[in-house]
Amino acid sequence: SLNLRFLFQLFYDPDNLRLYEKVKVYVQELWNILDILSILLFCIGLVFRLTTKLFYPGKIILCIDFVVFCLRLMAIFTISQTLGPKIIIMMDIFFFMFLLSIWVMAYGVAKQGILIQNDNRLDWIIRGAVYEPYLIIFGNFPENIDNAGFNINSCSMNGTDPMKPKCPVLNENQMPAFPEWLTIIMLCVYLLFANILLLNLLIAIFNYTFQEIHENTDRIWKFQRYQLIKEYHSRPSPPPPFIIVSHIKFMRNLVCLRSLCNSFCYYINIAK
Amino acid sequence: SLNLRFLFQLFYDPDNLRLYEKVKVYVQELWNILDILSILLFCIGLVFRLTTKLFYPGKIILCIDFVVFCLRLMAIFTISQTLGPKIIIMMDIFFFMFLLSIWVMAYGVAKQGILIQNDNRLDWIIRGAVYEPYLIIFGNFPENIDNAGFNINSCSMNGTDPMKPKCPVLNENQMPAFPEWLTIIMLCVYLLFANILLLNLLIAIFNYTFQEIHENTDRIWKFQRYQLIKEYHSRPSPPPPFIIVSHIKFMRNLVCLRSLCNSFCYYINIAK
Amino acid sequence: SLNLRFLFQLFYDPDNLRLYEKVKVYVQELWNILDILSILLFCIGLVFRLTTKLFYPGKIILCIDFVVFCLRLMAIFTISQTLGPKIIIMMDIFFFMFLLSIWVMAYGVAKQGILIQNDNRLDWIIRGAVYEPYLIIFGNFPENIDNAGFNINSCSMNGTDPMKPKCPVLNENQMPAFPEWLTIIMLCVYLLFANILLLNLLIAIFNYTFQEIHENTDRIWKFQRYQLIKEYHSRPSPPPPFIIVSHIKFMRNLVCLRSLCNSFCYYINIAK
Amino acid sequence: SLNLRFLFQLFYDPDNLRLYEKVKVYVQELWNILDILSILLFCIGLVFRLTTKLFYPGKIILCIDFVVFCLRLMAIFTISQTLGPKIIIMMDIFFFMFLLSIWVMAYGVAKQGILIQNDNRLDWIIRGAVYEPYLIIFGNFPENIDNAGFNINSCSMNGTDPMKPKCPVLNENQMPAFPEWLTIIMLCVYLLFANILLLNLLIAIFNYTFQEIHENTDRIWKFQRYQLIKEYHSRPSPPPPFIIVSHIKFMRNLVCLRSLCNSFCYYINIAK
Repeated sequence: SLNLRFLFQLFYDPDNLRLYEKVKVYVQELWNILDILSILLFCIGLVFRLTTKLFYPGKIILCIDFVVFCLRLMAIFTISQTLGPKIIIMMDIFFFMFLLSIWVMAYGVAKQGILIQNDNRLDWIIRGAVYEPYLIIFGNFPENIDNAGFNINSCSMNGTDPMKPKCPVLNENQMPAFPEWLTIIMLCVYLLFANILLLNLLIAIFNYTFQEIHENTDRIWKFQRYQLIKEYHSRPSPPPPFIIVSHIKFMRNLVCLRSLCNSFCYYINIAK
Repeated sequence: SLNLRFLFQLFYDPDNLRLYEKVKVYVQELWNILDILSILLFCIGLVFRLTTKLFYPGKIILCIDFVVFCLRLMAIFTISQTLGPKIIIMMDIFFFMFLLSIWVMAYGVAKQGILIQNDNRLDWIIRGAVYEPYLIIFGNFPENIDNAGFNINSCSMNGTDPMKPKCPVLNENQMPAFPEWLTIIMLCVYLLFANILLLNLLIAIFNYTFQEIHENTDRIWKFQRYQLIKEYHSRPSPPPPFIIVSHIKFMRNLVCLRSLCNSFCYYINIAK
Repeated sequence: SLNLRFLFQLFYDPDNLRLYEKVKVYVQELWNILDILSILLFCIGLVFRLTTKLFYPGKIILCIDFVVFCLRLMAIFTISQTLGPKIIIMMDIFFFMFLLSIWVMAYGVAKQGILIQNDNRLDWIIRGAVYEPYLIIFGNFPENIDNAGFNINSCSMNGTDPMKPKCPVLNENQMPAFPEWLTIIMLCVYLLFANILLLNLLIAIFNYTFQEIHENTDRIWKFQRYQLIKEYHSRPSPPPPFIIVSHIKFMRNLVCLRSLCNSFCYYINIAK
Repeated sequence: SLNLRFLFQLFYDPDNLRLYEKVKVYVQELWNILDILSILLFCIGLVFRLTTKLFYPGKIILCIDFVVFCLRLMAIFTISQTLGPKIIIMMDIFFFMFLLSIWVMAYGVAKQGILIQNDNRLDWIIRGAVYEPYLIIFGNFPENIDNAGFNINSCSMNGTDPMKPKCPVLNENQMPAFPEWLTIIMLCVYLLFANILLLNLLIAIFNYTFQEIHENTDRIWKFQRYQLIKEYHSRPSPPPPFIIVSHIKFMRNLVCLRSLCNSFCYYINIAK
C-alpha cells in the first residue's frame, strides 16, 4: 500500500524534471526495491494466473513473490535494539562469496575438463562445473569422480539422453580413463579449503564484525528506529483490509487535484 | 517429591483467595513448569499403561515424560561457577529461530507451490513445506527438485497413496514440467542463506553473548546457587526411595491439621 | 624405553614401602598413563600375535596400541609457544560431553521406547538408543522414524535375525502404528538442540577459554617446556634402534649393584 | 607476462654468479612460485595437447593449470584494507592439518588393520587408511565397519577385482569376524575428536588470530599495497592482448644489447 501511494506521489509531481532523481533516491534503499519488486511480481503473477494458458507460469511468479515478501518481512528486525543493527554484517557475505566462487569455479571447471570431453549441452556443463561442486560444500558427495563407484547406466555415452550426464572418457576396458588419483586428491584439497578453511574464515569474519559493530550499536539503532517510525507515520491509518478505502479516497483527491490543476493550467494556457 | 509437597502446601492454604496468585508465582519459573509437567505426564502415563486398551499411548506418554525429566536434569548445571550462568544464552536461540523459520517457510512454501499442484493432504503439505526444507539445513538433500533424478515410482500421480507424496505437474512426455533451473537456483540461495549465513550468524551471536555475560557471571552464579540451596533446604531429608515415608508423615500431619482446623472452624461457626 | 628404565627404577628401590606412592605420583600424569598403556598393549599384542590361535586378537590389540601411540605423539605440541598451552582447552569438551550425552540419551531412549516394543537383544537396544542418535549429529539420518520410508524387509518381525533391528509395532495394515508426527517433531527438536544449539555453544565456550588462557600462555608454556626438557634429559642418549644397548648396560649395572648390595646386606646380616 | 620479462632479466644478467641467488630470492615469494608454475604447466600442457598421442594428458595438465591460475587470482585480495592482511591467518591451517593428519592416520590405520588382512594393493590400502577416514569428517559415512550392513557383493574375497576392496576376515558363517563393537566405538570417538573437537578448535584459533592480526592490520596492509603497486609499475603498459608487442620490443632490445655486449666483450677479449 505504501507503494501505491508512492506511485501516485511519483506521477503527480507537477514538474516532471525531477522524476528521475526521485526514483533514484527511492531505489537506493534496499527495502524499497524489495517493495516495488514484490508489487510488480504480484501484479504480473495475478494477471498470468487469471488466464488459462499462463496459469502455471503465473503460479510460479506468485511463489517467487512470496519469497520476496518474506525477505521484506525481515525489515522488522531493525527495531530490535541489540540485534537489529547487526543484520548489516550480512554484507560480509559478499567478500566470502567472492572467495568461495573463485574456489568453486577453479575446482568445478578443472574437474569437468578432466572427466568429461566435449559435452555440448550447456545445462550439464553448468551442473558439473558449478552446481555439483557447490553441493559438495553442504555434504552431498558426487560419485562420478571415483572409478570404484562407476556405473555405466548412470551416464549416457554420447550425451543424447537429456536426463543423464555424458560419460567420462572410457578406455578399451569400458572403464573411465581419467587418472583417478588426481580427481581424488583434487576433491580432498577442495574439501579442505572450501569446507574447513573458507567456512571457518567466514565465522572469524562474522565474529570480528559483530564485535566491531557493537560499539556503534546504539547510534545505528536510533537511526533505524527513526526511519521506521517516520515510514509508518506517513502511512494511512486503517488496517490492511480497509486500507483500500483510504487509498481510494487518496486517489480521488489526487484525481480531483490533477483535473483541477490541469483545467487551471489549461485556462492559464488559453489566457496566454 | 517437591511437587507433592507443593501441592499439599497449595491446597492447604486457609485463605483460598491467594491460590491463583501462588500458582502464578510458581509457574513463572521454568524449572517448576517442567517439574509439574513431568509429574502430570507420569501419572497419566502410568494410569494409561495399566489399562489394556491404552497400553501403547501410555507407553508413549511415559517416553515423553523421560525427555522432560532429562531437561529438568539440566538444572544442576546452574551450580557450575563458570558455565552455569551462561546457559541462559540459549535464549538467543529464539531470535535465531525466528529468522530461520521465516526463511524456511519462504523457501518451503515457494518450492511446494512450484512443484506440486493442489495436494489436499495436510500432512504431505507440511512435509513438503516445512519438514523437508528443515532437514536440508542438516545435510539431508531432497531429490525431487531435480528432473535428472526424477523417478515416477517415488510419487503417486493423483495423491491417493498415503505413503507417497503427490507427483509434480507432468508435461506430455511424462516428465516434470516445473522450471528445473528455478528450483535449483532457489535451493542454492536457500543453502547459502540458511546453512552458511544464518548458522554463522548464530555462532557470532553466541560468542558475543557469552563474553557479555562473563562480566556478570559472578553475580548471576551466586544468585542461582542461593536459589538451589534454598530449594534443597526446603526438601525433606531422606533419600528418594524412603522419601515416600516422609511424605506420608507430612500428609498425615496435614490431614490432622486440616481436620483439626476444620473442626475448629466448624465450632467457631456454630459458636457464632 | 623411558618406561623400561622407570620399571627398573621402580623395582630397584631398596625400601619397598614407597613403591605404591611412587606409582601414584607417576600415574597422575596423563602422558605417563598413555606410555604405560602403550607398552602393556604392545607386549600383550606381541605375545598374542606369535601364537597361532590368538593371531587375530593380537593383531587387533596392536592396532589399538597404534592409536595410543598416536595420542602420545600429541605431547610434542606442548613445545609450541603459542598453541601448546591451549591444548588444555580440550578439557572443556567434558562439560559439553555431559550436556550432549544427556540430550542424546533423552532422545534415544524415548525414540526407542516409542518405536520398538520389547527387543531383548542388548546390542540392538544400544544401537537404537545411543549409536543412531549419536550419528544423527554428524548428518547420518535414520529412515525408520518415518512411515513413508518404511520397508518391511529392513527389519525382522520377531527379532530373530541378528543382522536386523526389530520392527516397530505394526497395526492391522502391516504398517508401523507409532504416531509418526510425534517422532518427526522429536527429531526436529533434537536436531535443533543437538546440532545447532549445543555445537554452537561449544564453539562459544572454546573461543572464550582460548582467549582466557592466552593471558597465562607464557607461564604455562615455560612450565611445560621445562618438564619436557627435564624428561628428555633423564633419558639415555643413543637413538631408538641402539637404545637397547644402553638399556642392557643399565640393566647389567643394576643387576651388579643389586647383587653387590644383596651380598653386602647378606654379610651385614651375617656380621650381626 | 611478468614471468617472461623475469626470465629475460634472469638470463641477461652479465655476471652469472648471482643467478642462483636471484632465483632464490624470487622463489621465496609464494605468488611468484605460482606464477612460474602456471607458466610452466601452460607450456607443457600446450605442447602435449598439440600432439595426437598425448592429447588427453595435455588436457589434464591445462586443467590443473587453471586451478593454479585461480589461486594466483586470490592475490588481488591483498588490496582490500580490512580483509587483505587477514588472509595470512590461513597459515594457522598448517598446525590444524598436523593435528588432523595424526588423528586421521591413527584411526585409519587401526581400522584398516582390524578389518582387512593382507591386502597387497597399495591404492586400496591408501583408500581405506586415509581417504575414507578423511571423508568421514565431511559427513560421508562408511558402511563396512558395521556387520548389520555387510553385503558380500560389495567386496572381493581374495582381492582380485580391481574395482572392489578386499573383504574383511570372515568367520565360518560367511560373516565378518572383526569385533563390531570395537570398530563402532572407534568410529564414535573418532567423530567426537575429529568433527567436533578439532574443527571447533580451528574456529577458536582462527578467531584468536583474526583479532590478533587486527592490531597490526594497517601496517601489513600498507606494506602489501606498496608491493602490489611496485609490481604493477614494473610491468609494461599495454593490456594483455597487445602485451606481446611490448614483449617482442623488449626482447629485441635485449637481443641487440646482448649481441652488442657480446661483440664488445669479444673485442675486449681480443684487445687483451
